[in-house]
Amino acid sequence: MKGVARREVQKLSGGVLRPAAEDDIVAEEPLEIRAQGDTLAVTMRTPGADRELAVGFLFAEGVIGSRDDVGSVAHCGRPGEEGFGNVIDVTAAPGFMLDVDKLSATRRGTLTTSACGVCGRRSVDDVIDRCAPQKVVTAMIAAATMFEAIESLRSRQPNFARTGGVHAAALHDASGVVLATYEDIGRHNAVDKTVGKLILDGSLPLQAPALLVVSGRASFEVVQKASAAGVAVIASVSAASSLAVDLARASGITLCGFARAGSMTVYSHAERIALG
Amino acid sequence: MKGVARREVQKLSGGVLRPAAEDDIVAEEPLEIRAQGDTLAVTMRTPGADRELAVGFLFAEGVIGSRDDVGSVAHCGRPGEEGFGNVIDVTAAPGFMLDVDKLSATRRGTLTTSACGVCGRRSVDDVIDRCAPQKVVTAMIAAATMFEAIESLRSRQPNFARTGGVHAAALHDASGVVLATYEDIGRHNAVDKTVGKLILDGSLPLQAPALLVVSGRASFEVVQKASAAGVAVIASVSAASSLAVDLARASGITLCGFARAGSMTVYSHAERIALG
Repeated sequence: MKGVARREVQKLSGGVLRPAAEDDIVAEEPLEIRAQGDTLAVTMRTPGADRELAVGFLFAEGVIGSRDDVGSVAHCGRPGEEGFGNVIDVTAAPGFMLDVDKLSATRRGTLTTSACGVCGRRSVDDVIDRCAPQKVVTAMIAAATMFEAIESLRSRQPNFARTGGVHAAALHDASGVVLATYEDIGRHNAVDKTVGKLILDGSLPLQAPALLVVSGRASFEVVQKASAAGVAVIASVSAASSLAVDLARASGITLCGFARAGSMTVYSHAERIALG
Repeated sequence: MKGVARREVQKLSGGVLRPAAEDDIVAEEPLEIRAQGDTLAVTMRTPGADRELAVGFLFAEGVIGSRDDVGSVAHCGRPGEEGFGNVIDVTAAPGFMLDVDKLSATRRGTLTTSACGVCGRRSVDDVIDRCAPQKVVTAMIAAATMFEAIESLRSRQPNFARTGGVHAAALHDASGVVLATYEDIGRHNAVDKTVGKLILDGSLPLQAPALLVVSGRASFEVVQKASAAGVAVIASVSAASSLAVDLARASGITLCGFARAGSMTVYSHAERIALG
């Protein structure tokens, strides 16, 4: 399996170190994302769904708006060359320009992702303002559908089952049908891949309300990416941060955390959740 | 408490949505890190220990090598101004130059942190080579000390107890004494703060072997930061990635995962662990 690597490890328990044996480890490798041949970003990711990751990342950054803006998405080089598969190039569709200056201006010198141009934004209000509310497709969503989506996330994590080391994200429609789901060592990559799949399918902008479920905590970045995609509801199995809550409120997104076993904390727009 | 924010939330359980009430949420705000007034990076972090974070980050990037290279580390602006506390400037000590060109060259256009110049490195071997082994201070460390350090990590997480939403990192000496420990919404920030504390104390380079324990998974980035600081042993409560394992092996670091309740998986250099 592409997302899993094998390494010799030793297990220690009860004061005894067992002999070395091969074990499954979550794979992590650098991916260089290029636009028209120019390097835009390098992310440490779990190999697989690189096209979805590249397109989802460029979408979250505002470089592309839909499938129509994209020409080709392909790995550079030739199979067998050192590092093949770790560089991917996105070209513009005929007549479209990839606005990479915009990205490099906000990206330059950023430590973590500066999704939506955080660089230079010093106050929380400034960040929220910059990440202007998107066109969130709203509708009621059943609490039961949210709990089922959270429950099913783990069952759709084959790499987690083997390695215990990956995050997952899944997009569902309001009736609970899975639109896309991916695993990655990086939470933000899992969200980018999931949104990227919808872009490549031509399913963005969304025509119906969508639910994003994530295995990790809901940080600002997760809400920002969901907001860019017009997702109406986010459910996390873990906690949400203050900035995630503030952005969800400003963006009209229903944000829920600690969602498991029939209970959750609703941080924003609870009016959209249908009970019982 | 600085790392905790208060927000009104609603709890849903048993099909009932309870009235809104204030709850503790992990705080997340942008920190702009400057060197001599130039913006180098923006990271989303939990406010607090910003001086440690800035210095630890610059150290991991190779911009500074020790406390002696640093002049002042201070927030810009005046208390009461919008966003005060979210911009910090590091100046060079007299006679020292902050080599920011080096950083911006490797940083430009990076999605996640490109610690140790990942940008442009397309193969795993290339990444490992670039992150040349550091001077790891080696010595035996008792398995019992490692388990105690892991156990005590949670007890030193006041914000986790209140919010359920933060990572933690702690540096211990070989006898188990805590040298530094911090919480942050970002795992990499918690490590930067912990290393940064030692730099500000003038305790780096390390004169004795050190153990780093982290609450999250051990990714490449965590091992790279530990390697830069000369840490001999890393223990994580969660899984390690393939690249983290490969870098630990190349750097002479003992890397352990799933460390809890008396058992752990040893990914590299098991010979340094003293049993029973």
